[in-house]
Amino acid sequence: MESLKIIKIGGEVINNDKLLLKFIHDFSSISGRKIMVHGGGKSVSSLSHKIGIIPTMKEGRRVTDADTLMLAVMVYSGWINKRIVAGLQKHFCQAIGLCGADFNTILANKRSAVPHDYGYVGDVEQVNSNWIIQLIESGIIPVFSAITHDGKGQLLNTNADTIAASLASALVNQYETSLYLTFEHQGVLADPEEPDSLVPHLNPNGYKKLSDNGAISGGMIPKLDNGFSALQQGVNKVIITSVNGLTSQQNMHTELVLS
Amino acid sequence: MESLKIIKIGGEVINNDKLLLKFIHDFSSISGRKIMVHGGGKSVSSLSHKIGIIPTMKEGRRVTDADTLMLAVMVYSGWINKRIVAGLQKHFCQAIGLCGADFNTILANKRSAVPHDYGYVGDVEQVNSNWIIQLIESGIIPVFSAITHDGKGQLLNTNADTIAASLASALVNQYETSLYLTFEHQGVLADPEEPDSLVPHLNPNGYKKLSDNGAISGGMIPKLDNGFSALQQGVNKVIITSVNGLTSQQNMHTELVLS
Repeated sequence: MESLKIIKIGGEVINNDKLLLKFIHDFSSISGRKIMVHGGGKSVSSLSHKIGIIPTMKEGRRVTDADTLMLAVMVYSGWINKRIVAGLQKHFCQAIGLCGADFNTILANKRSAVPHDYGYVGDVEQVNSNWIIQLIESGIIPVFSAITHDGKGQLLNTNADTIAASLASALVNQYETSLYLTFEHQGVLADPEEPDSLVPHLNPNGYKKLSDNGAISGGMIPKLDNGFSALQQGVNKVIITSVNGLTSQQNMHTELVLS
Repeated sequence: MESLKIIKIGGEVINNDKLLLKFIHDFSSISGRKIMVHGGGKSVSSLSHKIGIIPTMKEGRRVTDADTLMLAVMVYSGWINKRIVAGLQKHFCQAIGLCGADFNTILANKRSAVPHDYGYVGDVEQVNSNWIIQLIESGIIPVFSAITHDGKGQLLNTNADTIAASLASALVNQYETSLYLTFEHQGVLADPEEPDSLVPHLNPNGYKKLSDNGAISGGMIPKLDNGFSALQQGVNKVIITSVNGLTSQQNMHTELVLS
């Protein structure tokens, strides 16, 4: 079985042009079959402030009203996605930018308004992998933005970690899939104040302890939930790391394990 | 030889949600192989006013500084493109949204700053049709936004009529191509004040007369230049019409002819 890397980027690397260009260069040198998934949260927040829309967050997830959805689609599927694709082409990587509506790749359900109304937020319902596999086998790199659709014409904002984990899980029958969820740290820290407290392997018990004592909170919770869920669905490897951790020799990261 | 329709939409149909949804429905019912190309000029202008960037036009073309490019990519390749794709999926049309960077489909050169500096504006240099043909033959509808790239990582704003004409011209060896450049009128009017003065067939001599007497001006000039250029490059048919003209029984339009 061929191997496939699904690499999710977000946060600082998206907001900083210089970091993004360096990452695109590093990503282009990663060998083998690969998919990129990106968010772009801070760009949306800063742009929405600029035009007078104040973003609201609940449990690490943006509340997406109609204006915020428009901004998210513009920034994620437009500005960030197409710059990444153009950047990869510069390095002779044949890439294609996708949202879940393209090729009908990712169908989602609008999340129930009870108990909290998150607005136009979608929970992934189904990944249609035929075209994704065909692209990968043709040497194309799919670059997914964190936007899905409901099949009835409605675009939906969807957590980028969830999209990456759903893609990895949907492709386990075709590939030995490895999921890389990157963020601003080298991995999970046992003590958020102490950069040297990196946890090299984290299992569900360890996760529970760190979340009970508050070391893991906020956006880390859906990230780790997505990671463990992917492992349970047969994903071969789930790594939490920084974008530098993807390509550096030091290779500092947290690997999620089931036991 | 199979036939292929390349349909460019812009203006009012893009700015008005109700018209856009109706057009997507009508477009989904057009039989045979087809490509959609869209601009989105007025959306960019209104959004750029909102965040304090004043757009400038020269000879029907936007002057694209760095901020305006960002807006154009966000609106064209993001919000408009993905809504059209999601809308087509609703009607069970398998569609994919593309800019010129995706699959490296459309390479452009940044226009020379002499005699006028148009900023990040690209003139189409090369259409790579392999993937476009593969998509069409797989029953996929490519939906192009009016953004290209230079192959060195730079996205460029490009006239949507030019993109449509370039696609039609690049595909003449594979298909009998028909190019439909739609706009807010039923076709070319001999007298802009007189809706009944529709010109059913327009040749280069007639075009010269109408442009000399001022009946044709502004954005119509690049549109017709693109249309005649496509005909000269072997495009089978070039029609200037309204979006309603595409599907209505009355079928009012101007057909460009070479003699």
